[in-house]
Formats: sequence, structure tokens, C-alpha cells
Amino acid sequence: MLTVKTPEEVLALIETVFVPLTDRVENVELSAAIGRVLADDVIAAEYVPDFDRSTVDGYAVRAEDTFGCTDAIPAVLELRGEVLMGQGAKMELQQGCCCAVPTGGAIPQGADSVVMVEYIEDYGDGLIAVSKAAAPGQNMIFKGDDVFPGKTILKKGRVLRVQDIGALAAIGRVQVPVVRKLTVGILSTGDELVPPDEKPGPGQIRDVNGPMLSAMLSAFGADVRFYGIVQDDEVLLARTVKAALAECDAVLLSGGSSVGVKDAACRIIESLGELLLHGIAIKPGKPTILGKVGVKPLVGLPGHPVAAYFITKLFVLPLLDRLSGCKTENYTVTARLAESVSANHGRAQYQCVKLERTDGQLIAHPVRGKSGLIAALAGTDGFFCIARDCEGLPQGAEIQVTISGK
Amino acid sequence: MLTVKTPEEVLALIETVFVPLTDRVENVELSAAIGRVLADDVIAAEYVPDFDRSTVDGYAVRAEDTFGCTDAIPAVLELRGEVLMGQGAKMELQQGCCCAVPTGGAIPQGADSVVMVEYIEDYGDGLIAVSKAAAPGQNMIFKGDDVFPGKTILKKGRVLRVQDIGALAAIGRVQVPVVRKLTVGILSTGDELVPPDEKPGPGQIRDVNGPMLSAMLSAFGADVRFYGIVQDDEVLLARTVKAALAECDAVLLSGGSSVGVKDAACRIIESLGELLLHGIAIKPGKPTILGKVGVKPLVGLPGHPVAAYFITKLFVLPLLDRLSGCKTENYTVTARLAESVSANHGRAQYQCVKLERTDGQLIAHPVRGKSGLIAALAGTDGFFCIARDCEGLPQGAEIQVTISGK
Repeated sequence: MLTVKTPEEVLALIETVFVPLTDRVENVELSAAIGRVLADDVIAAEYVPDFDRSTVDGYAVRAEDTFGCTDAIPAVLELRGEVLMGQGAKMELQQGCCCAVPTGGAIPQGADSVVMVEYIEDYGDGLIAVSKAAAPGQNMIFKGDDVFPGKTILKKGRVLRVQDIGALAAIGRVQVPVVRKLTVGILSTGDELVPPDEKPGPGQIRDVNGPMLSAMLSAFGADVRFYGIVQDDEVLLARTVKAALAECDAVLLSGGSSVGVKDAACRIIESLGELLLHGIAIKPGKPTILGKVGVKPLVGLPGHPVAAYFITKLFVLPLLDRLSGCKTENYTVTARLAESVSANHGRAQYQCVKLERTDGQLIAHPVRGKSGLIAALAGTDGFFCIARDCEGLPQGAEIQVTISGK
Repeated sequence: MLTVKTPEEVLALIETVFVPLTDRVENVELSAAIGRVLADDVIAAEYVPDFDRSTVDGYAVRAEDTFGCTDAIPAVLELRGEVLMGQGAKMELQQGCCCAVPTGGAIPQGADSVVMVEYIEDYGDGLIAVSKAAAPGQNMIFKGDDVFPGKTILKKGRVLRVQDIGALAAIGRVQVPVVRKLTVGILSTGDELVPPDEKPGPGQIRDVNGPMLSAMLSAFGADVRFYGIVQDDEVLLARTVKAALAECDAVLLSGGSSVGVKDAACRIIESLGELLLHGIAIKPGKPTILGKVGVKPLVGLPGHPVAAYFITKLFVLPLLDRLSGCKTENYTVTARLAESVSANHGRAQYQCVKLERTDGQLIAHPVRGKSGLIAALAGTDGFFCIARDCEGLPQGAEIQVTISGK
């Protein structure tokens, strides 16, 4: 029998039952790689930089030629020309000699350090006085200091960020192997729903979950297909779900937890695959169903927008991460509750907040509302959880807020 | 004279000198509104819901008809039909009567509460027994509970998130007034640079900042124009900067802090507008210049990728926020340092970290590297700051990490 599961059990179930989809590698241009999941380790095949480089404007020297020099008794070296930016150092530096190099310029063979221009006097007759001894390796980056052949730059499963794009550019990876985007189908169900651009008639409301879930999944990085508003008719529903499952990697049925649709959705899942879950012990969002058809998940989300929001954030996105072979960490920021919040014993309770910074401290203002009330979400900055064994939190309590990002 | 400024002074300067660009409103489809900056307050013009709604499957009643009833002595009510989903409640409920309503269904006039189906017995002869007294308002949402005419749903300057998209759908705002995207021009300068798809010759390296900054600004939400790699030639540079300023709302000159280009960039700024800043007291990233040409910023970024990364994150993105009329909060997560970090007295020092969760606690591993080393950024999760009056932090110190997001 399927019982209501805790959030932890649901996440563990997802990891156990679903596996990363295979054969989903595609190469994208570096400029399109941000936010994508890396499909292979990136291992460097060359040196960066490919030559010893100066980190200052100065003079390349053999450090030992400067040992013991001071303001009063400078080391006098023969100037053997200048390295130009973007060109190789064509000479080999002999003992007693130096060579001008710009920041980022190549350091000639034989040299092992750079003296900053501040510690140099150019006598103008081909001789240069150095007033500060150089330590070997000073003011330079060695060939391969940044990257060398065989070095692992980025690991498979990494969601590529700005800083990774820089590293890929540095080693010339202008084509990046990434996991193909997941295609997620969304169906809104409910005889009371009209599209957002229509005026609701008596007893009708606009479909909120269709646009909201589409936005969430697009921002997450999925390709979204919206199958429209489907009436509470089992035959029609089964047909649309089957079509969506054929075209998508995962399907969300919003409103599939209302009595009629829920029963229908359960029957559809059981006729096509396996029903895995029938209820999650969280508030809002308890009436959630999860099934598996082949390797594809089919999720029945609560129709209440706030519940649908939390279930998607907390369980559907991790499920999609699992299918893509990556894992997104849930980082939280510490804040203090502006007012007390009561909770139902027995279910983890999620609550949206607005954050405000007062004297350097983050204050979280809970935004109240029954779970059908979308205005309780609008304008919020994040959310926190009251554990299921907790009956509420007092004003001033320290909480961990998940910032809702886009 | 322009002196080196602290990060706080630079951010204050940005707020003082630059103003939100005007006449930049455009209407976008709701499906394209996520991540955009709202250009006007959104004020509701109607009720959501537009009727009293049940939150459970049950029977709409007049609460007073059920007062005092129990399992042993139920209240017996006359069943006056059923409200169908998505249809208005056509009747008016008389005293002593009830009416079946589904979750989300309309509640007829005269009724003031809903009894859950669990507390009902249907005698089958047109009479219904209620075994639990209803409180007025129980199990229902009233017309306008979510939204009512005149209610401010979202404020101007809000960066629209998933939860806001839901609220906009609920009130039928399928066209959203947003601030037009900023167009940002990027020039990479340096005679040593080759494009990432070319193999560097002697003394050459690939351009890292062009692709990295383009990715950062695109992810931020700007339209990016890359003007390519420009040689260190003042005439050529001035011509390209002028062209970029004509076409863009802001221009970034990467590598503009190397000696030759920096001087040239300063002269170009001074010939076209006003030089505002010549150095920021942070490490890495000190050699940064900022100017203003008309209302447009021109930024000379350090050529070192790690320095360019931090300057763009810490100052350019807030500057672009300012031009768009919004403000992004910098939330941080608390972590413990895995090893000690030393710092230079006198400059705020920024350090990238990889985060790891051990026994529920976040551990931050500093990723070392000279500021030219892009590998010190790759694969990191965020960064933290060592204050300028601090000489370093010991292992185990609690730090505030900014998660680098995309």
C-alpha cells in the first residue's frame, strides 16, 4: 500500500527509482553553455600559459645576478632588448644581462624572475641598475601554472557558471559537451480553469499553474511544452497524458490531485507504468502523486498554486536534476522571524517570506495566505521550513531561508 | 585628484552619479517576463476569486443550521442540488438547506460555510445529516480573499520571479510592462590576445574575458555586443569605444587597465566625458577605471580574468541594476573556512571557494591562485571577502559566502 511519505523519503525514492537519462550528449557553442550540465569531464590538453609570463612591468633577470644589491650598491646589468606584448622572447638571457618585459609578456629563457620597474634605473648607455634583489620566481607565472595537460578543469555533472566559461575559453574549448535539455510537458486540469488572457465567467478562475510552472521550468533550464487546459474527463486526460509522455522526458499534471483527476491520474499511471507515491507529508502540497512510465516520471501536482509551487521547487526540480545527472545544492541564508508562526504537528510546513535588512541583520516577514492564494507568493524573496515535529516558531527565531532565485 | 576608493565609496558613487535610464518601458508576454525588471506597479483591477469558493469537497450550509449538532444528534438539512465545477451557484440557499460543492466550486448565496464530506451522511431521500457543527467562514475562500481591485500586487523595480508570474496570470496580466534590456558592449584589448578558437602563438594567450564577461552579462539579463579583440592602439581604441558607446547603454573595456590601454582609456573618457574613478581598494581588481559619457558608463576592467570577474560581479552588475532602476540583494550563506587565509592589510580581499557539506555544516575550501589564473575560478561555488582591516582568517573561521549563481 502506498502511504504518505516524508520529504526525505520522497527525495530518496527519486534517487533510487530514477536514473540519469543516457545518450543525451550534445555539443554547444561556448557562448550557449552557461547554465547547462557538463556531460563529460573537461581535461586540459595543453599548457596555460604556454610560456613563462611576467605579472608586472619590469625587467627579466637571473635572480642570482641581483643577490646582495641595495640602493647604495645596485647590481648593474646589461640591457639586452625588450620583449613585445604578444610576441615570443626570442633571446636567451646570459649571465649579467636583463631584458625589458611588459605585464603579461614572455620571459626569455635563462631568466627566472622579474624586477619591477620601480627598482630599476636606466643609465641610458645600455646598462641598467637594479636596487632590490630578486627572489627566483618573483613577479612571474610559470608555463602551466594555470593549466597543464591532463589537469581536470571541470567535472561531469557540473552546472556551468560564468567562471567555468572563462576556464573553457582559456583552454580553447569553444564546443562544450553538455546534457541535452530535458523536455517537460505540462497539463493543467480543471473544469473551472480558463486561460489567463480570458475573463473568468461565474465559478471560473484563470489557470495560474500553467504559466507559473512553465516559467519555473524554463528558468531551471528545461524545454517546456504546455498541453493546455484539459477538462476533467478520464478518456481525454489519458489521451493527452500519453501524447505528452511520447514527446517529453517528464510530464506534470497540474491539478491532478483533485478527487476526480487524481483517481483518473492514478488509474492512468497504473495502466501505463507504476504508481510510486500517493501523498507527501508537507503543507501545503500533501496531495501529490508520482508515477513512472518507462524511465519517465509523471507527477500529479496539487491544483492550489502555492502547493504546486512548493512541490515543484522541492521535488520536481531535484527529480529533473537526477534525470540530467547533476545535483543542485540548496543553500540557505540565516534570518530572524519578524513574527511568530504556528504550524501543524506532523507535516513539514513551508512558508514564504519577504526579507528586509535592518542594521545588517536579515529579518523575515512571513507572507500569510491559504494555499490557494497566489498573492501569498507574489513579491516574496524566499521560503523556509518548519520541521514536522515543531509546533511553531516564536518571533525572533533564527530560520534558514531558501532564496527563490528567479 | 582621483584617488583609490573603497568598495563602499564606489557603490555610493554609482548611486550618486548614475540614474535609471528613462523611456525604456516595453510590454512583453507573460511567458517572457521572468527575470525582467517591472517598469510599473501592478495594481489589480478585479477580484480573485470573483466568487466565494470552497476549499474542500463537501456541503455548503448556513452555519447556524448546524450549531449544536453531534454524532448522536445530527442536524438534518434538505439537499438542494449540487454546484458543478466551473459553473456559478445558481440557487440561493434557504434556511435548513444545503448544497453539494466540490473543492474550488462556487458557494451559493445564503451559505456561509462548508462541511467536509466526512461529517455528512446522505440519507438518500433528499435529506442530509451533518454530525459536526460548522463555524461561519469554515472551509471557504471569500471573493477577493486573494486579490481585490486596487490592491498592489507587485512594485515597480521588482525583478520578476516564478511566484510573480503566477500572480500576474491570476489577474489576467498577459502583457507585462518591463524595463527594456540594457545593451552592454564589451571590448577586449591586448596585443597578446587571440580568440578562444585559435591556437596561441609564442607570447600569446586566448581571450578569456570576452567570453566570460559576455556569459556573465547575458546571464544577468543584458543584451551583449562583443566588439572583438582590439589592439593597443589609441586611435583604433578610441574609434571602437565611440562606436560602442553610440550603440550601447554601457561599455566595458577589458584589459583597459594595462599601462598603455589604461592611459589611452583615461584620455578617451576625458575627451568624451568625465573620469570618475581611478582604482578600487580591492584585491584582485585594483586597477579599475570608471567614466561617464553622457548618461552612459564606460568601465576599464583589469585584464586578469579573476580581477575582471570580481569587478564585474561587485560593481558592474550593481551599476547595470542602477541603470535599470532595480536593486539586487547580495545574500550570503554561512560557512567555515577549511584552512587559514592570509590577506593584505589595506585592501578588501576576495577569494573564491568550493563548498562542501559535512555533517550538515558548510565547509569552504579556498581555491588559491594568482589573479591571472582562471583555474582558480573554475569549478568554484562562490566567494567571500576578507575585510581591509583584517590580516587574515584562521582555519574554522565563520565566513559569509556569496553563492555565484549561474
